[in-house]
This record gives sequence, C-alpha cells and structure tokens, in this order.
Amino acid sequence: MHAIRLHGVEDARFDDVVEPELRQGTVKVKVAWAGICGSDLSLYQHAPVPLDYANPIMGEIGPKTLGHEFSGTVTEVAADVNGIEVGDLVAVQPNFADGTCPACVRGEPNLCRNFAFIGIHGWGGGFSDYVVVPADHAFVLPEGISLEVGALVESLSVAWHAVKKSGATVGSTALVVGAGPIGLGLLLCLKAIGAEQVIVSELSSSRKELARTFGGDVVDPREVDLEAYVRSVSAGGVDVSFDASGVGKPTLQAALNSLRPGGTSVIVAEFHGEVPIDPNLFLLGERALVGSFAYTAEDFSEVIAAIADGRMSPAPLITSKIALADSVERGIEHLLREGRSTEVKILVSPALLRTEH
Amino acid sequence: MHAIRLHGVEDARFDDVVEPELRQGTVKVKVAWAGICGSDLSLYQHAPVPLDYANPIMGEIGPKTLGHEFSGTVTEVAADVNGIEVGDLVAVQPNFADGTCPACVRGEPNLCRNFAFIGIHGWGGGFSDYVVVPADHAFVLPEGISLEVGALVESLSVAWHAVKKSGATVGSTALVVGAGPIGLGLLLCLKAIGAEQVIVSELSSSRKELARTFGGDVVDPREVDLEAYVRSVSAGGVDVSFDASGVGKPTLQAALNSLRPGGTSVIVAEFHGEVPIDPNLFLLGERALVGSFAYTAEDFSEVIAAIADGRMSPAPLITSKIALADSVERGIEHLLREGRSTEVKILVSPALLRTEH
Repeated sequence: MHAIRLHGVEDARFDDVVEPELRQGTVKVKVAWAGICGSDLSLYQHAPVPLDYANPIMGEIGPKTLGHEFSGTVTEVAADVNGIEVGDLVAVQPNFADGTCPACVRGEPNLCRNFAFIGIHGWGGGFSDYVVVPADHAFVLPEGISLEVGALVESLSVAWHAVKKSGATVGSTALVVGAGPIGLGLLLCLKAIGAEQVIVSELSSSRKELARTFGGDVVDPREVDLEAYVRSVSAGGVDVSFDASGVGKPTLQAALNSLRPGGTSVIVAEFHGEVPIDPNLFLLGERALVGSFAYTAEDFSEVIAAIADGRMSPAPLITSKIALADSVERGIEHLLREGRSTEVKILVSPALLRTEH
Repeated sequence: MHAIRLHGVEDARFDDVVEPELRQGTVKVKVAWAGICGSDLSLYQHAPVPLDYANPIMGEIGPKTLGHEFSGTVTEVAADVNGIEVGDLVAVQPNFADGTCPACVRGEPNLCRNFAFIGIHGWGGGFSDYVVVPADHAFVLPEGISLEVGALVESLSVAWHAVKKSGATVGSTALVVGAGPIGLGLLLCLKAIGAEQVIVSELSSSRKELARTFGGDVVDPREVDLEAYVRSVSAGGVDVSFDASGVGKPTLQAALNSLRPGGTSVIVAEFHGEVPIDPNLFLLGERALVGSFAYTAEDFSEVIAAIADGRMSPAPLITSKIALADSVERGIEHLLREGRSTEVKILVSPALLRTEH
C-alpha cells in the first residue's frame, strides 16, 4: 500500500510500504479521509522526531507515516475485540499514554510523559491506505455523521478540550484570536456549549466569512481597536479568551488584555519564542493563563455526541479534498505557501486519483 | 488622636486628627498593633491614590491614614450591632466591595471594580489610635490568639487566598520564591493545609533561617541550581509554585519552569514591568499561571481558625515592634533602605512611647 512518510526536514515521500497486520485488541481501518493539521506543517518543516528515536509506547524507529486526523471503515476486527464490527465507520483517537506516569495516575493521560501519536511517533498514520489501531481508539460514528466530518473529530477535540480548560459555560462571553482550523473549531465548540457571544479576531477574508457563518462576532483588528471593542460589548472584558494563532506578543496580549477580572485565557497554538506579559494583569484581576494540549477519549466522545445531536455542524470547515499522492505538494506545501489564508481544512483521500497538474 | 497620613510621594506625616465617631453598624477599635506591608512601601514611594480621588464606597478625599494590617480592642459598639462586645479582641478585614459589580455578583468581592481598603482609600487606618469599622469586618480573636498575632491575620489571609487559588491540597509539593512576609506566610499556609514538601528559594540568611524554622526546604539559588533541585526532589516538578518576590524574569521563570505538567503557578507579588514567558511551557504541559489578589471574609475566618487550632504558629514572623510616631523613619524608610533583608514583619503600636534616637 502507499503511505506519506517523513524522512527528514522537508522530505516527505509517497512510499510503498507493507500493509499493517491485525494484532490482539486492534481493528484494521481502511482510511477514508485524513486532515492536514498545522502540526503536520511543523513536523514537515522541522522533523523533530529523530528517525532513530523509539517512543516507549510505540517502540518504532525509522520514517513515520504522517496523518493523525482521520476516519475510515473497519475492515477487520481482532477476535478479542467486542463492540465494533466490520463495516463500522470510525474516527480514530490517535494519542496514547503509558498509563503509569504521574500524569496518567492523576487522570491526565493527554499529559503522559511518554505520549505517542499515530501519525507522528509510529503505528502508521492517516496518510496511507490502512491503519491498524487499538479498538478503544476507534470511535464508531453514529448514523448521520459522514466520513468527511468524521475526519474533523480530532481537531474539534483539540478545541473541545481547550473550551473545557477555559471553564466557559452557558452564557459565557469569549474572544477567539485567529480563525484557522482550531480557532473556528473553538467557535463551534463554544457555541455548542451555549456561550452567549463569541468575538473572533481574524485577518483573512475567507476565514472571516466562515466565522460569521458559524455565528461569530467577527472583528478585523486592522480596522477596529480589538481590546476597546471587546470591553465595549462585554461589560469590561470577556470571561474566556483563546490564542489560536500563536503569532506572538500582539495576539497573546490581546487575549489577556481582553479578559474581565477573574477571566481565563487559554493557549491552544504553538508559539515560536518568548512573549512578554504583564504580571500585574494577573495579580490585580486574578486573571489566569492556561495551556491546553490534545484531548482525551472523553473529549472524542463528547465531540461526536455534539455533532450527532446537531449542536455542531462542522462540515463547512472542509475547503479542499485532494488525493493521497498529492498531499505533500498540493496539501502541506500549498498550506505553507499561500494556502493558509484561503484554506481551512484540507482532507486527503487514498481513494482519490492523483490529479494531473 | 494621632495618625500617620500620606500627603504625597514620600510624604507621610504624624498628624493630629479628629477621633472617628461610631456610626450605625460599626464598632470602634482601639488599635493595638498594625503591620507594615510591602504595599505600604509602594504607597509611600508612589502615592498612587490622588488626594482629590473619592473612592465610590468610601467617598473620602484628602490625605488618608495608612495601615491595613491591624488588630485591637473593641471600645464601643453601635446599638444595631450584635455578636461583638466591648473588650473583644479583633483583627480587622480592611477591604470592601460595592456588592453590585459583576465580580461581586459572581461571588468574587475581592475583585470588585470599586474595591476600597481601610488604610489606603479612607475610613482611617491602623497607623492611628482608633478606627471605626463596619462590625462584619471585625473578626473576634478566640482565646489564645494574642493581639500581636491578630495583626498578622491580614497578611496571612493574602497567603491563604493564594494557596486556595493554586489548588494545593494534602500531599501537594510546592515551590515558594521569596521568603518575605508573604512568602513565609505561604509556607505556613501550605503546611497548614497539609502540603507534603515546600521548597523555599531565598537569599537573605535571616529569612532562610526563619523558613527552616517553619519547615521549609530552603534553597539559596546562588548556591544551587534551583530548577534542577526542584525536579530532582519532586518527581519532575512541583504541583504548585508561587512568585512572592516580584523580582521579574528570573523569579517568575523559576516558578514556571519548576512546575510539573498540569501544575499551577500563582503570582502574589507586585511586579514592575513586563516579564517574558514561554507559551509552549503552557501549551505542551497544560501549566497555568494565575493571579491572587487580597482575600475574602472566608479567608479571614479560615486563617483565624487555623491559628486557633494550632495548624499555624505565625508569631516568629514578627521581627520588630516600634512606636506609631516612629513608623515612617524606623518602619517604612528602614524597610526601604536595609530592613528588607533582616526584617520580616514590623508591628507599629500607638501605645508604645517614641524611642529617642
């Protein structure tokens, strides 16, 4: 079968690989769709996982298959697995924990010190024809959720987890800085839990348009004084804010300065380098800054339930569908060049034929 | 009567003032002891409250009496007040809220947008002979708590509130950066709630000694690599940390870098200027930075209960006792010069005679 594997910095190849075999406790998934994530771009640019590094959970060395946001159809089920059947449509939770480290023991498996991801550390990835995954990481999609939308569950779980970390609840006011895939996901999740008002700060016109479609109160910070606007419409500041852009000082400070006393700001984006903050903003108003990393099985279940019962309708996040063979040039490299301002989520399919171009 | 009133920058005077009169709902307190706080030093140096500013709760203009950490004996009780009697020994909670702002409605009166302090914004202050205070802000000291220790309740409530904000609990590990009055208070409060290990970083030898007396695991960061030490003794990082020094980048980063994944750092000190942080420390480990400001009535009650039942024995915090008339030169100015490294808490008494010097 084929797989997009990362061999080094800016070296991802459309390789011929051996089809994975069923093991105890696993199911085999024929990949339908796999989303390209901001962290795939970062992996491509920096190749942070050395080829000779074996993650303690996955134990693999060598080039790894990319793709950690994916859905598919179950084609084989190990004899010891119950509750999942051939033909089921599933979304795969790609992160794993060792279950024994202090974070795991505290009940925070997403912070496991040996955390491992399908699509980063081993056990294949969504940018391939087949993946064999532990059965408890394959979430059956209920009737009415398509495989395309199933491929969005992973990135929505990132946003869902962050919204829970923020403490937002019914009636909350929120600011989301940056309307990329995660920022728009935050908007959807905030609306799904009953947030009253979600202000979204974004520059790209297509992303602004999508944020409006999702019910966001959209502000272009080049045209409007964002912090003044937030204070004017939210009685002195929002309950929660999110930096989903990772730009740096202007975005993180906008997120912090827009909080009411006692409010919480969540970092959901990767940053490059240090950012200055004003500690007195924390001291005098008991504001909080917290990080949110990945998700747990609970987040996956809750996102699927919210889509199933209509609280979230995320399908418009999908802006392009491309063939697996094209996923580097027309996917990753396109997003690194000009695509970030026009695309939101690009889905890759092994079933699509390569486009001649 | 006499009072130390702030007339402007570095202009605090030993003034003759009119003795305050009992009003409905108040008690009159003959001040026994009043502590000098780091914020008194800041008020003295910067005089941030303009003489013509009338706080919405207190409504006073003109020079204000200093002193917000004080105890005394009740000498008069308004006819409409129950539950407190002439002769009762009390500690006074000096902060007030308007009860109607969004923070008050949320149940966070310490974050009231119109917050007011006796000793800063009006209604007299502890650096005087008498103060008339609303009866619900006078906390009767149980048998066995002296008036000297009663004057420590306010600063211990700052620490108590911060420990609650941190989420520390029985068995927690902690780092406290800076063993001044608040840092040592944090150590006492952490031990009182059952923290397993409290590492204290401090330079001054007398403060280090006191921290050891209180059961702290004391480190001098000039002699030991603090972050490496913390990681080595706490399985990869402490549960909670506190910057009680406000020095800036080295102390705040030490507090953040010493946290385990999922840990919380609390800012309890005033800082001067911005401090750079690494957002990825938050993102990847879901670490949190929160501020803690002042206290509520609940904190006051809990601190008094913890002293009364022996969980805290804070008397050694008191390093000097001086006369009210000496409180500027031998108190505030002494602390601003050389006193910070040798003193912890200086108490002022209107009953002490002025020392000739």
